[in-house]
Amino acid sequence: MGRPPTPLLSTDRIASAAMELVNATGGFTMPDLARKLQVSPSSLYNHVSGRDQIVELLRERAMSEVRLPDDQPDRPWTAVVAEVLGSYRLSFARYPRLIPLLTAYPVSSNDAIRMYNILAVTLRRAGFDAADSLRAITLMDCFVLGSALDVAAPEEPWKSGAEVNPEFAEALATGVGNPDRADDAFEFGLAVLLRGLSPG
Amino acid sequence: MGRPPTPLLSTDRIASAAMELVNATGGFTMPDLARKLQVSPSSLYNHVSGRDQIVELLRERAMSEVRLPDDQPDRPWTAVVAEVLGSYRLSFARYPRLIPLLTAYPVSSNDAIRMYNILAVTLRRAGFDAADSLRAITLMDCFVLGSALDVAAPEEPWKSGAEVNPEFAEALATGVGNPDRADDAFEFGLAVLLRGLSPG
Repeated sequence: MGRPPTPLLSTDRIASAAMELVNATGGFTMPDLARKLQVSPSSLYNHVSGRDQIVELLRERAMSEVRLPDDQPDRPWTAVVAEVLGSYRLSFARYPRLIPLLTAYPVSSNDAIRMYNILAVTLRRAGFDAADSLRAITLMDCFVLGSALDVAAPEEPWKSGAEVNPEFAEALATGVGNPDRADDAFEFGLAVLLRGLSPG
Repeated sequence: MGRPPTPLLSTDRIASAAMELVNATGGFTMPDLARKLQVSPSSLYNHVSGRDQIVELLRERAMSEVRLPDDQPDRPWTAVVAEVLGSYRLSFARYPRLIPLLTAYPVSSNDAIRMYNILAVTLRRAGFDAADSLRAITLMDCFVLGSALDVAAPEEPWKSGAEVNPEFAEALATGVGNPDRADDAFEFGLAVLLRGLSPG
C-alpha cells in the first residue's frame, strides 16, 4: 500500500519540469519533458493541450512577481508606467533563458493581459491614440525584456581590451565595480522613454 | 584513397554546429556539440579554448550584417545612432534564441567592440558624459535586443480574448493584419529614444 513512489502528474509539475529544462538548456521538447517526469509523452496530454499551453504556464510564472497598481485615474501616467515596468523587469529577470520562448508565442494568459490592459488604459487617458498606444506598449515590452536580460549579464558586460577606443574605455570605467550598474541603467532608460514618449 | 568521409574539424564548423543547436534547442553543451560533429569532446579543444570562445564566434555571426558607418564627425549623432541600431536589430533578429546566451557572456569580439566604439565616440561628441554614454549604450542594447526578439514574434503577438479591455482591444486592432507592425514599432521606439536622450 503506502504512497505512490512519485507525486501524481499535474499541470503544475509539468510546468515546473519545463521551467527547469528551460533554465538548464534554453528550451524543452515534449519527449524531453516526459523523460524528465518519467512518464510517457501521451500522459502529458492528459493534463495539458500541448506545447502552447505549457508556454503560457511558464509565462504566468515569469509574471508572478509583477505588481499591478490599483486604478487611480488621477495619478500621473508616467508614475503608473514606471511602477508596472519596474516590477515587470524584475519578475522576468528571474528567467532570462525563457524570454525568447515567450516572445515566440502569442500572449494569452490572463495575468499578462491584465498588465497590458492597465498600460493601454493609462496611455489612452494620457492622450495617446490607439495606434501609438500599441507602439508604446511594444516599445515598453522590448525595453523591459532587453533590460531583464541585462540583469542576468556579467558584472562587467564588456571586456576592456586593445580594440576599445578611449571614449568607450572611459564609459566602461564608470560601470566597473558598480553592483548597481544594471539598475542604474534601467532607471536612466526608463526616464529617457518617459521623456521621449510625452504626448504633450 | 579519395576524400575523407567527413570534412575536417575547424572553428568554423564548430561554430556552425553550435548555431544549429542553439536555433533548434535554445542552447548547446560541449558533449552535444561533439556528438553532432561526430568527434570526441576532447578534439573540440584542439580548435577552441572552450564554451566562451564558441559564444564569441556565435556573437560574430549574429553581428555579421551590422553595417557600421564611416566616421563623419559633422553628421548629426541621431543619424549615426539610428543607422547603427537599425542594422544591429536586423542582424540579431536572425538568431532570436541566441540572444540570452550572448547577454550572459562578456562581449569581447572585435566586431562587436567596433560597434560600441562608434556609439561611444558619437555620444561623447554629442555632449553626453562618460557615465551617461554607458547608460545610453546599455539602453540602446536593451531596446535593440528586445526589438530583435519582436521581429521573431508571431504576426499577432497578443491573442484578443474576453479578458482584453476596450482600450487594449482598440490598440491591438491597429496592428492586426499589418505585416510591418514590428518595423513600425521599432521606428516609433527609436524616435522616442532619440527624443528622450537629447542632451540639449
